[in-house]
Amino acid sequence: MARATDRLTKIPEMTIRRLSVYTRCLLLLEEDGVRTISSQELAERFNLNSAQVRKDLAYFGQFGVRGIGYYVSGLKTELQRILGLDREWPVALVGLGNLGAALFHDKGISRQGFRVAIVFDDDPVKIGREIDGVPIVSTRDVAREVKERALQIAVLAVPADAAQAVTDQLVAAGIKAILNFAPSRLKVSKDVRLKNVDLSIELETLSFYLAQAAR
Amino acid sequence: MARATDRLTKIPEMTIRRLSVYTRCLLLLEEDGVRTISSQELAERFNLNSAQVRKDLAYFGQFGVRGIGYYVSGLKTELQRILGLDREWPVALVGLGNLGAALFHDKGISRQGFRVAIVFDDDPVKIGREIDGVPIVSTRDVAREVKERALQIAVLAVPADAAQAVTDQLVAAGIKAILNFAPSRLKVSKDVRLKNVDLSIELETLSFYLAQAAR
Repeated sequence: MARATDRLTKIPEMTIRRLSVYTRCLLLLEEDGVRTISSQELAERFNLNSAQVRKDLAYFGQFGVRGIGYYVSGLKTELQRILGLDREWPVALVGLGNLGAALFHDKGISRQGFRVAIVFDDDPVKIGREIDGVPIVSTRDVAREVKERALQIAVLAVPADAAQAVTDQLVAAGIKAILNFAPSRLKVSKDVRLKNVDLSIELETLSFYLAQAAR
Repeated sequence: MARATDRLTKIPEMTIRRLSVYTRCLLLLEEDGVRTISSQELAERFNLNSAQVRKDLAYFGQFGVRGIGYYVSGLKTELQRILGLDREWPVALVGLGNLGAALFHDKGISRQGFRVAIVFDDDPVKIGREIDGVPIVSTRDVAREVKERALQIAVLAVPADAAQAVTDQLVAAGIKAILNFAPSRLKVSKDVRLKNVDLSIELETLSFYLAQAAR
């Protein structure tokens, strides 16, 4: 167990993110009927870096076959397993404002492997209704619902000032991974994975490079 | 010029992202009337790593004063300048579906330093209208509008299959930085900064850790 954790902490998060990209590329190749592909061809076709592809995959095993390259379907299945996509993850979506609705309707969450199981919101007009068959439940019932449904992943699309309180409830109820779209620095215990998607940070990274280039 | 570029490429992107976070923390401190703060206090108050704060800032100069720490307002202003936030960046928002609308109404884009100057969409019902005073223009007019307005930053919230075509138009018209929310691998020339925000990648990073932890 300690060994598995050690190994995990050594894998750069960017590698995990790229595995996710490679998996999508392999799915497209599979749809096109491609059975094998070299790292060079894969890189050219999808605008990747072939050395990086090989280095990223090397963290998880030896997937390439000399003179053949990668078996598309086999590698895809293996990467899906590594990414935990060989099972379905029910997700709690918290907040059904503009952004929550966009995240719900966007195909992102409902992609293979993920399914919004419940939506939490504070709006009395929405509570008790359903959206595409998914129940909308009061945020007050987070503890009960998360436990009953044994949910582990939550997507947070609430205003900044509400984010920490609902996060504390989610974590207390058993949520182990949070994707946070609220522009606030959340505190969670160490056993909880927190990913922040902050539009301002993304924009400011761009303005940084533009500003530097202009100097 | 070559030297500026060299220096730039050595700064990790994560450092730039954290500068953005530090700037927000300093703004909060300024609002609270805090005039000076040590890296330790800053780290404790905002759940940061004090050694990392010092290392990140060291890329850009010597900001701390022995025995005093950082001057909150001064450091904030300096970081804003580094991040290009000492000027306003007009932004083109492309796509006004669920996600585009959420991005528009979300305070993210309109935060200090950024302003949506124009919205492009394909929907005849929306074209010619305004949203909060911002004109909604046909995507066919990207070339003309981007040039006339001298826009450099675009936020892409279009379906995956439309993303590359509109990107090519944007880049040809002079866009230098793109924040892409479409789940597709875009090709852009080397002088264009591209940032992808991909919900699936974020979710799959979380499921990876949950799956590994369960093994």
